[in-house]
Amino acid sequence: MTNLGIGLIGYAFMGAAHSQAWRSAPRFFDLPLNPAMTVLCGRNAEAVEAAATKLGWNETETDWRKLLTRDDVQLIDVCTPGDSHAEIAIAALRAGKHVLCEKPLANTVAEAEQMAAAAAEAAAKGIRSMVGFTYRRVPAIGLARQLVAEGKLGTIRHVRAQYLQDWIADPEAPLSWRLDKEKAGSGALGDIGAHIVDLTQYITGDRIAEVSGQLETFVKERPVAAAHSGLSGEAGAERGPVTVDDAAIFLARFGSGALGVFEATRFATGRKNAIRLEINGSEGSLAFDFEDMNELHFYDATEDPATAGFRRILATEAVHPYVAAWWPPGHLLGYEHGFTHQVVDLVTAIAEGTDPAPSFADGLQVQRVLAAVEDSSASRQWQEIPS
Amino acid sequence: MTNLGIGLIGYAFMGAAHSQAWRSAPRFFDLPLNPAMTVLCGRNAEAVEAAATKLGWNETETDWRKLLTRDDVQLIDVCTPGDSHAEIAIAALRAGKHVLCEKPLANTVAEAEQMAAAAAEAAAKGIRSMVGFTYRRVPAIGLARQLVAEGKLGTIRHVRAQYLQDWIADPEAPLSWRLDKEKAGSGALGDIGAHIVDLTQYITGDRIAEVSGQLETFVKERPVAAAHSGLSGEAGAERGPVTVDDAAIFLARFGSGALGVFEATRFATGRKNAIRLEINGSEGSLAFDFEDMNELHFYDATEDPATAGFRRILATEAVHPYVAAWWPPGHLLGYEHGFTHQVVDLVTAIAEGTDPAPSFADGLQVQRVLAAVEDSSASRQWQEIPS
Amino acid sequence: MTNLGIGLIGYAFMGAAHSQAWRSAPRFFDLPLNPAMTVLCGRNAEAVEAAATKLGWNETETDWRKLLTRDDVQLIDVCTPGDSHAEIAIAALRAGKHVLCEKPLANTVAEAEQMAAAAAEAAAKGIRSMVGFTYRRVPAIGLARQLVAEGKLGTIRHVRAQYLQDWIADPEAPLSWRLDKEKAGSGALGDIGAHIVDLTQYITGDRIAEVSGQLETFVKERPVAAAHSGLSGEAGAERGPVTVDDAAIFLARFGSGALGVFEATRFATGRKNAIRLEINGSEGSLAFDFEDMNELHFYDATEDPATAGFRRILATEAVHPYVAAWWPPGHLLGYEHGFTHQVVDLVTAIAEGTDPAPSFADGLQVQRVLAAVEDSSASRQWQEIPS
Amino acid sequence: MTNLGIGLIGYAFMGAAHSQAWRSAPRFFDLPLNPAMTVLCGRNAEAVEAAATKLGWNETETDWRKLLTRDDVQLIDVCTPGDSHAEIAIAALRAGKHVLCEKPLANTVAEAEQMAAAAAEAAAKGIRSMVGFTYRRVPAIGLARQLVAEGKLGTIRHVRAQYLQDWIADPEAPLSWRLDKEKAGSGALGDIGAHIVDLTQYITGDRIAEVSGQLETFVKERPVAAAHSGLSGEAGAERGPVTVDDAAIFLARFGSGALGVFEATRFATGRKNAIRLEINGSEGSLAFDFEDMNELHFYDATEDPATAGFRRILATEAVHPYVAAWWPPGHLLGYEHGFTHQVVDLVTAIAEGTDPAPSFADGLQVQRVLAAVEDSSASRQWQEIPS
Repeated sequence: MTNLGIGLIGYAFMGAAHSQAWRSAPRFFDLPLNPAMTVLCGRNAEAVEAAATKLGWNETETDWRKLLTRDDVQLIDVCTPGDSHAEIAIAALRAGKHVLCEKPLANTVAEAEQMAAAAAEAAAKGIRSMVGFTYRRVPAIGLARQLVAEGKLGTIRHVRAQYLQDWIADPEAPLSWRLDKEKAGSGALGDIGAHIVDLTQYITGDRIAEVSGQLETFVKERPVAAAHSGLSGEAGAERGPVTVDDAAIFLARFGSGALGVFEATRFATGRKNAIRLEINGSEGSLAFDFEDMNELHFYDATEDPATAGFRRILATEAVHPYVAAWWPPGHLLGYEHGFTHQVVDLVTAIAEGTDPAPSFADGLQVQRVLAAVEDSSASRQWQEIPS
Repeated sequence: MTNLGIGLIGYAFMGAAHSQAWRSAPRFFDLPLNPAMTVLCGRNAEAVEAAATKLGWNETETDWRKLLTRDDVQLIDVCTPGDSHAEIAIAALRAGKHVLCEKPLANTVAEAEQMAAAAAEAAAKGIRSMVGFTYRRVPAIGLARQLVAEGKLGTIRHVRAQYLQDWIADPEAPLSWRLDKEKAGSGALGDIGAHIVDLTQYITGDRIAEVSGQLETFVKERPVAAAHSGLSGEAGAERGPVTVDDAAIFLARFGSGALGVFEATRFATGRKNAIRLEINGSEGSLAFDFEDMNELHFYDATEDPATAGFRRILATEAVHPYVAAWWPPGHLLGYEHGFTHQVVDLVTAIAEGTDPAPSFADGLQVQRVLAAVEDSSASRQWQEIPS
Repeated sequence: MTNLGIGLIGYAFMGAAHSQAWRSAPRFFDLPLNPAMTVLCGRNAEAVEAAATKLGWNETETDWRKLLTRDDVQLIDVCTPGDSHAEIAIAALRAGKHVLCEKPLANTVAEAEQMAAAAAEAAAKGIRSMVGFTYRRVPAIGLARQLVAEGKLGTIRHVRAQYLQDWIADPEAPLSWRLDKEKAGSGALGDIGAHIVDLTQYITGDRIAEVSGQLETFVKERPVAAAHSGLSGEAGAERGPVTVDDAAIFLARFGSGALGVFEATRFATGRKNAIRLEINGSEGSLAFDFEDMNELHFYDATEDPATAGFRRILATEAVHPYVAAWWPPGHLLGYEHGFTHQVVDLVTAIAEGTDPAPSFADGLQVQRVLAAVEDSSASRQWQEIPS
Repeated sequence: MTNLGIGLIGYAFMGAAHSQAWRSAPRFFDLPLNPAMTVLCGRNAEAVEAAATKLGWNETETDWRKLLTRDDVQLIDVCTPGDSHAEIAIAALRAGKHVLCEKPLANTVAEAEQMAAAAAEAAAKGIRSMVGFTYRRVPAIGLARQLVAEGKLGTIRHVRAQYLQDWIADPEAPLSWRLDKEKAGSGALGDIGAHIVDLTQYITGDRIAEVSGQLETFVKERPVAAAHSGLSGEAGAERGPVTVDDAAIFLARFGSGALGVFEATRFATGRKNAIRLEINGSEGSLAFDFEDMNELHFYDATEDPATAGFRRILATEAVHPYVAAWWPPGHLLGYEHGFTHQVVDLVTAIAEGTDPAPSFADGLQVQRVLAAVEDSSASRQWQEIPS
């Protein structure tokens, strides 16, 4: 089988998740190409070397540009913070490498536009690109989309979506790159709000047309972590500004007229990674919570009222998306499986010569929604999403 | 409308619940007779007077035999501890009074047999009797029985039933009449185990044929409550023996061959009144927990596996048993409503000249199951239920 | 004990609920006054007579003004549609009658202002008034307020509240007075949105300062019900306009800076009466769903992370608000109990000479929030709430 | 780092799970030895070759005895049906190979005794053995054991455990080796009942002393699968006997006096892999369901009753067993992670020269419990477990 050499840039949280995906995908799925874990890239030579050994990559590089010149690398997997996505991804596409880019696509709409343009150009030459909205690949989410597409919900009336975390609810939680606008571009809105924008659009097959939002930074200053301040033993003494939002809430109107209510926060004490979605249509409803990610709740309003009720579907049956490759019913999948499924879909698209989804254009559209939320928060008015 | 004069004996927990039922039933249901809260009976004149005022009864008596001679009393409602059920109920039936008797029917099988015989004799003369297995009247339970009767579960394979409480899990919880074999006849087995025997037989329409059980009294001595010891200021100093079981567990084989697993305990810390039932048939399953008493969970195994799942049916629709008389969907009923429904069914049967269920014969059969569990615990063998 | 004569106006859904409350309250609680179910009032003599018999009222009137002149009536309980609240309540207060008025207080802010002014005037003379936000009296809600007041949640960051129903999700559901702006004043916003505005303010002890909202009427025309059209046999042929909102969504900013997200709809298929509240503070969180109304979920963020988790508190312990009067732990209360508790609090306040809450002024403030949501929906901008 | 060469025998369901464990463990945990996926063994040369390619093993063998002679294999991982466990494991231990053996340890107590003896002999020479009760390694289960060990539950009173599946609830589900006593030794009892015996003993740190049980085979004949009958096109025509139990229920008495209730079945329609455990102690309770495997529910009875309640602990915090190696809080683990953790513990024990748990002696004890259940089912009496 033909190899597909992978060059992964970044080896923190996302790097580890992507590594596990590249490693596991061919062991459970029949892939048309054989992904090779060729090279891991990071700026610190010693650290990247250690990471490569740990995560199972054959070689390392410290300059991502080198990856673009290697013949044994056909795909660049971008797991860096958002501020370098545009530069790397555009260069990679121009160098003829397929690109998988973590979300959010970029830190600004302008960058995202350039990336989408580059992706379109590359696509014309058979070079593929995908943005990593990995939660689309949770089987219960795939099932949700199927049910909507089959018309089981009728006309969609309501979308409510929350992405709730609590890791900085404590005002003494230290600063990190995710709280720095230069690096991260955005806070809860871009980091986790982006996911629920993508998921609700993906499931409904509809797009957000306009929004009214509000951003908030509850804790405006935080301790500088020792590692960042360079002053060991004095962690906590120095404080620095939080330059991104802690939480974002917004109303939305979908193209179809459905009403949406969105909330992304890192201050929901007790909620660890609660992606909660609920969709109400004229003929049925769906509910999902990532903290029970193997379950989809479905209400069929056309049934006999005596026995109608939300069904807890354990999305672990062979008929559910991706599941046949794994374990018997009731043997749960976890967080990392979404990354494996993402790789499966991407490799399949590359081999088949089709454009995988979500595309960079899809990522750009999400970025525009997020930008409209920010604008709306400033203008205190509804804001339309340019198409 | 013709009055149905009620004489209620006992005014503690059950007396209060029955009073609320007699008071509420005609306000929500169209009854064929008008229940009159005629007389409340208890041994302590002062206490029963106060209770009658509080609970809304017109008159009081201190000798239950007086009730049997009153022309304005047509129904005796027995809410005393089990040791007086047989004497009162038999006398009342012989005096031509309809009888509603709290469960368990009696403290011994022998007593229960006499009661069932008296009830059969009385029935021949148009005098009705019913035993108070009130949980049958929870709408979700009625729905469960309907679904089984309609064949939605196919062949029943498994019954699992637990009645879990924790009010004496603390070894320093004081003695009460419920822990005294003379008064109560039995502990967890008779008090709460009786309910799950009745409920599972009611829902499945089947009967337990044999059992293997084990009783246990975890805490063998407890503080004598001040009120019982008569020694104010010295509560806790004196200790007395617990003469009933704290917990009972048993396996069962139903007539149809279905396997049953039962558990009744007052030592399940954190479970307050958890009547948990689950029934698995070849074509579907049901699950119920009284701590969410307005819900029935139903799994239909004949459905498309892509969307099959336990449905949480909120049994608050007008099509559900008893519900049309109350509130709109989603406006929950509570514990006391079962008592109201019980009264509705009883009054209706009296007016229509039919025998209400559960009959004293049904109560006797439950008693035989409980006795077989006790015997089995002693013999360490399976025990058949005489029919 | 002194009687408190009640005159109830209206005998539909709310009339039945209030009747059950007046009947039950003295049977479970020690009231300082004895509520007498003196007179039921409605315009149709025959219908009100039948209702009085059914619901247990001594006499009837067809003109509510007559109630104000009766010496045996000390309290007017207003259960009519919103368009008559102001006229009746103001007249009653001026006539020296205490008033319990169903929510929403009025159909317009102007009316509500007049009512609040009348209530303030009356209060100076010892005449009490209360608006019927009955859900405040659910024990789990009372507990929620206590926990916030005790500081268990720290600084409140997020409030999310949904009131979800589905009774008109079907476009063929007929018109009713609740869909008529003249009668009802408002649709989902005023009918059910009012409750979550009141509840979240009650629990947090904070008030909404500004809102950004959107109203929607998904189904603009509906069949005229036969009863309304007067044309039996032709129901469905005639259609009439829906003049209120089907759904309302809004963002809110509380006085403290907390972010709020609200949603009220009658189009959430499968949700029957789901009042869902979640409050996140710096030190803890609360969650509630009326479809499991006996439960409060509480997360304590100050606990050891190894065992921290949302606790499902079954709010049926004697230590919980109102519960000691009822049943043992785990024996659930239902929808109607909130009305009983409301009556208990009102009668107690009257006897003690204190002003009960929520006052008409509280009702007015809720009305102002709702009006601001409507204004915001029209202006597409944030709207402040006048104080 | 020193290699630990693995020879895996069997490549079906368990073989795939073990492969993923060997592959993943060194990528997330710091192992003291480097597991090498050296050789996969199976009887069919072509099939094992294909499996090795798919699952990522370097070489293949068709005769398991060859593995015992290879110097590059230090550990034999036995994933065959139960009828070959004893022969393979004993030979491997005698050949100086460490052994990981899938559960149940053997098909008979006699075989298990020989295996335990061989393991004890081998241990004296530093050769390690472990039986694969993998569910012990679910983080929530590890946490449960910790809480009991810390005394958080006080004196254990009740253990209730169910392992519910439904994959042969349909009478037309075909025969498989798991329904054949020769191959599998036992049905639901040995296959899944073994897990809940092990888990409850592991969590409580106590052992079952005696049992009273009942086995049942509901469907006595089933279609012979085409693959087994060798008659393509006639699948279903031929029927063969089911020679193992479909379901097993049993009562248990633990050494401490705690009461146990157990149930293992493949006929619980709608339950896919529901390992449900509940443990009630004098000071607290625990509840677990594998269908929500990342959650542990804990009730602390020593808390203020106003806020006591079962806490839903999401066992995804870094402080929970094994979790620090994986993802941030709320990012769920799945079924396969238990196998990875099993490998981590085994490799660590081998490197540290300690005996891993559960040992073959532990596996033998579980086997004795299962045998006592079978004996009890035949004798209809309680049966003691020999120690």
